[in-house]
Amino acid sequence: MTQHQRNMSTPIDPVKLDRLAEVAVKVGLQLAPGQDLLITAPAAALPLVRRIAEHAYKAGAGLVMPFFSDEDITLSRYRFGPDASFDRAAGWLYEGMAKAFTANTARLAVVGDNPMLLSGEDAAKVARANKANSMAYQPALEKVVGFDINWNIVAYPGTAWATLMFPDDSESDAVAKLADAIFSASRVDNDNPIANWTAHNAALRQRTDWLNGQRFRALHYSGPGTDLTVGLADGHEWVGGASTAKNGIVCNPNIPTEEVFTTPHALRVEGHVRSTKPLSYQGTLIDDIAVRFEQGRIVEAKASRGADVLNKVLDTDEGARRLGEVALVPHSSPISKSGLLFYNTLFDENAACHIALGQCYSKCFVDGAKLSPEQISAQGGNKSFIHIDWMIGSGEIDIDGIGSDGSRVPVFRKGEWA
Amino acid sequence: MTQHQRNMSTPIDPVKLDRLAEVAVKVGLQLAPGQDLLITAPAAALPLVRRIAEHAYKAGAGLVMPFFSDEDITLSRYRFGPDASFDRAAGWLYEGMAKAFTANTARLAVVGDNPMLLSGEDAAKVARANKANSMAYQPALEKVVGFDINWNIVAYPGTAWATLMFPDDSESDAVAKLADAIFSASRVDNDNPIANWTAHNAALRQRTDWLNGQRFRALHYSGPGTDLTVGLADGHEWVGGASTAKNGIVCNPNIPTEEVFTTPHALRVEGHVRSTKPLSYQGTLIDDIAVRFEQGRIVEAKASRGADVLNKVLDTDEGARRLGEVALVPHSSPISKSGLLFYNTLFDENAACHIALGQCYSKCFVDGAKLSPEQISAQGGNKSFIHIDWMIGSGEIDIDGIGSDGSRVPVFRKGEWA
Ligand SMILES: [Zn+2]
Ligand SMILES: [Zn+2]
Ligand SMILES: [Zn+2]
Ligand SMILES: [Zn+2]
Repeated sequence: MTQHQRNMSTPIDPVKLDRLAEVAVKVGLQLAPGQDLLITAPAAALPLVRRIAEHAYKAGAGLVMPFFSDEDITLSRYRFGPDASFDRAAGWLYEGMAKAFTANTARLAVVGDNPMLLSGEDAAKVARANKANSMAYQPALEKVVGFDINWNIVAYPGTAWATLMFPDDSESDAVAKLADAIFSASRVDNDNPIANWTAHNAALRQRTDWLNGQRFRALHYSGPGTDLTVGLADGHEWVGGASTAKNGIVCNPNIPTEEVFTTPHALRVEGHVRSTKPLSYQGTLIDDIAVRFEQGRIVEAKASRGADVLNKVLDTDEGARRLGEVALVPHSSPISKSGLLFYNTLFDENAACHIALGQCYSKCFVDGAKLSPEQISAQGGNKSFIHIDWMIGSGEIDIDGIGSDGSRVPVFRKGEWA
Repeated sequence: MTQHQRNMSTPIDPVKLDRLAEVAVKVGLQLAPGQDLLITAPAAALPLVRRIAEHAYKAGAGLVMPFFSDEDITLSRYRFGPDASFDRAAGWLYEGMAKAFTANTARLAVVGDNPMLLSGEDAAKVARANKANSMAYQPALEKVVGFDINWNIVAYPGTAWATLMFPDDSESDAVAKLADAIFSASRVDNDNPIANWTAHNAALRQRTDWLNGQRFRALHYSGPGTDLTVGLADGHEWVGGASTAKNGIVCNPNIPTEEVFTTPHALRVEGHVRSTKPLSYQGTLIDDIAVRFEQGRIVEAKASRGADVLNKVLDTDEGARRLGEVALVPHSSPISKSGLLFYNTLFDENAACHIALGQCYSKCFVDGAKLSPEQISAQGGNKSFIHIDWMIGSGEIDIDGIGSDGSRVPVFRKGEWA
């Protein structure tokens, strides 16, 4: 009996874990009765996926289809796989997922793997595998990025991730701390998380309404190592919090989320900018990024760590050197105030203003759902296989909005809404 | 430190588990360099799947693609899913798997779930879900059953399965006992399992060579409650142990395997037969089956338990009432001698002579790979969405081979090769 109890104990609060599952289904996805649900998750996140499946079926899901990955199996490929393996990807699976999304299947991604999983592996193999996978996944990703369907990402406190963040704690304490950080950032550490999310979405809506009223031509960033003008796409729209997918469902794609964001003009970015937090990109940490833009294109890129991976990423395709997103997050956001570096974009992008290399979001255009890829491109929307957010905000960043007449309106001062 | 060691202890011998993985890859699949591998497994079988992935990559696998199911998530659907869920299946996924098999992807299935998982659920829902799944899976199953590619099934000692088999033991002891039973039946409880399998395959080949030389027209079974004549398909071929897939790879589809088997004639089965062991069919136990055949078709079916599920299964399609396989296993086979009921066909079919309702195997015809579905049908091969083996052998069964001239040759006496 004693042994049994010990085995069943977990550092993860089961009540908050269940609330996170409920928020993922009811707020993140707003899963519609009869809708199928495709879940991807680390195998270690099984306890959360089980809670999600139950809430999804209670919400009337047609079929819940979980797909699990495993850190150990991923590493086996790098350690023992033949060279030719690294140009392969499960194209048939991704084509099938694209079909499922076309048939209105909702999409939920659980993240929780060790962000440094591949940091010790051959960077060339990592880049080849990522590229093969990105290209194969493209037909499915387009449905998600194009917001054809309701989708959501939530996090589970994986052990390796937790010990990376809390290296001085025991495994169990580290997992408990990361679990609490996830629950807090995801706003489920209270008795009425659904109502809490409704209020949070309304607050974000106030910000986007103001920005959309201003119709800025560009944003100008100044701060240490940063003097950057980001032109905004023609007909850009600021979005944040809940938004409406093309299938008509109002959902919250990211949990947590603190950002409001829109589409920069792919050809109209000038100047230089420095990252303010490390970027954890598919297993590699890229630190102290410093880049210079000319006519929207990165013409110079440095990093104190992971520069080789950064430069491989920038060479993925033509759009990889241009911006697809610009996002505003106050320095006082709860995730920023936690002082934690999560090594995970889902959290770290909500701690600071950021920009993203690569693919833009069609929903960040006025009437974006009706625009063809050609129209989006003509209005300045960028196209790429990649979409990588990196942090440029801090308590020292000032941002001005520049109107079509050249007038300047303070947007951020010292990292806060002006 | 103490806690750590306790958590990491497992009742499953890691050396034998690794050998089972090696046998699955090198004997079961004979995975070819560059071949992709699709694995399905219970989430609980992750430790075995990890070992399989490593051996597969060491053998030169292109991409190892594991797909995990979970008992708890499966039950959630029955407990909380809407009624319409039970007519749904992941067609897009199975279509994709069919594509993968067409592209020469190998197939490995790990079994280990609780055989009684669905025994408490609504039988009508279970039947609907199974039918929807079988129909959606058909395009992929055809490639496996048609032996287009090398495939294999192995088992992992799941906890619920173990406690079902060993109800008087602690969980840990039950898992240890089932693990040992699996390792022993799978012939990995010795230092040279690969050589052991080579010898075992040669012994099975001797039996099939003799049977193929006899060219029996029919087999006649007699024993308690059984007086059955099973006509054999025109151009039938006895197979057993290693055989050659259409992609040219010699593999062992089942681990363990003790049977030699061939195709009965779908229209030429007469008489009555009783099951000698319970049949565990997708979560329901069906016991004391007694059926009567007329012109190959089951015209009467009874069971002391699970009769409703049995009769639903028989109504799946026209071929569900006819035989697709007849298999010979001596009563002295190692699995029979273990005295264990595994509640799992992979093991129990290797403890006794058996027959299967439903789909036949094209490889059980002379030059089967070259026969069209129409030719197979014309020679007496059965077609169905299902293939369900059930045990009719015991120490009391006599079997005669009946030649084309009506002559009788003893094949089995008192459950042993004559
Ligand atoms: Zn963002
Ligand atoms: Zn982004
Ligand atoms: Zn069989
Ligand atoms: Zn069979």
